Amino acid sequence: MKAGALELGEGSKTSIPRGGVNRGISILDFILRLIAIIGTLGSAIAMGTTDETLPFFTQFIRFRAQYDDLPTLTFFVIANSIVSGYLVLSLPMSIFHIVRSGARASRIVLIFLDTAMLGLLTAAASAASAIVYLAHKGNAQANWFAICQQFKSFCERISGSLIGSFGGIILFILLVLLSSVALSRC
Amino acid sequence: MKAGALELGEGSKTSIPRGGVNRGISILDFILRLIAIIGTLGSAIAMGTTDETLPFFTQFIRFRAQYDDLPTLTFFVIANSIVSGYLVLSLPMSIFHIVRSGARASRIVLIFLDTAMLGLLTAAASAASAIVYLAHKGNAQANWFAICQQFKSFCERISGSLIGSFGGIILFILLVLLSSVALSRC
Repeated sequence: MKAGALELGEGSKTSIPRGGVNRGISILDFILRLIAIIGTLGSAIAMGTTDETLPFFTQFIRFRAQYDDLPTLTFFVIANSIVSGYLVLSLPMSIFHIVRSGARASRIVLIFLDTAMLGLLTAAASAASAIVYLAHKGNAQANWFAICQQFKSFCERISGSLIGSFGGIILFILLVLLSSVALSRC
Repeated sequence: MKAGALELGEGSKTSIPRGGVNRGISILDFILRLIAIIGTLGSAIAMGTTDETLPFFTQFIRFRAQYDDLPTLTFFVIANSIVSGYLVLSLPMSIFHIVRSGARASRIVLIFLDTAMLGLLTAAASAASAIVYLAHKGNAQANWFAICQQFKSFCERISGSLIGSFGGIILFILLVLLSSVALSRC
């Protein structure tokens, strides 16, 4: 009888700090998601509102640069909007994990969705970087000229909007790591 | 005493199928890693050996296309080599998980590394896709011309080599999911 009571005591002793650590992880998860929303939404808005009209004529016929001239940048805006939308929808799940720190199935679902969104965001950010790099440097072998001499403010804007996305990628990797640590302690 | 024996029996009953499922997951993990090695290594080799010399002169000065003319494609080859190297090194870990299906810490490490490699591979594949798309279609607004009219076999080769990478991305998402399922059952 005594041994049984001791075992029961041991069990509840180890389960209380476990729940506490998991709650802490879930709160951190919630905060990281809020930061990621700001980053991705900021990127989408910064890129989506980019528009430059040159005050003079150049040797090219057009003298206006917008983000949707390049399909890759349109994809960037769409992907960042999808990811920030997903992050807003995942906030209730994150709150649920703060309340119920022992939940398992919902954590696996969240790891899977987070990983998929990490893939989408990385794809959008790196494809956009490849195009932004080309806009800055051009490529002599392929006869693609740098367009940043003509469109300076446009180029600065599209370069800056990448920052939020790459921040979001790092946050997603952290979120997956945190969820798997919490899962192993359930 | 009887109740204690019953409890012990219950415990071992539930732990055997759990271990069995985890072993199955670990074996599947090992097979998926082998497929991913073939995909990413194949992509790296297909892209790295691309080289086309045109049999005639064009209006451009150069008449030879290689993958390292475009920095993004060089990044693609390097990233695919790194990921396939990582996958080879992760095989012993995967075998360790087949033998010891209850391992936790090493699974968390593997989830983290897998997610990081997923990020690297996605970045490389999508940046290369953005450039391949540009090579095929060009962009009238930025005055970038399609180069695929001149370099047909080069374009087919670089388009085909993307397939292995995108297959690898899907496999990595599955690997992270499998690891987290196994982790929740430890």
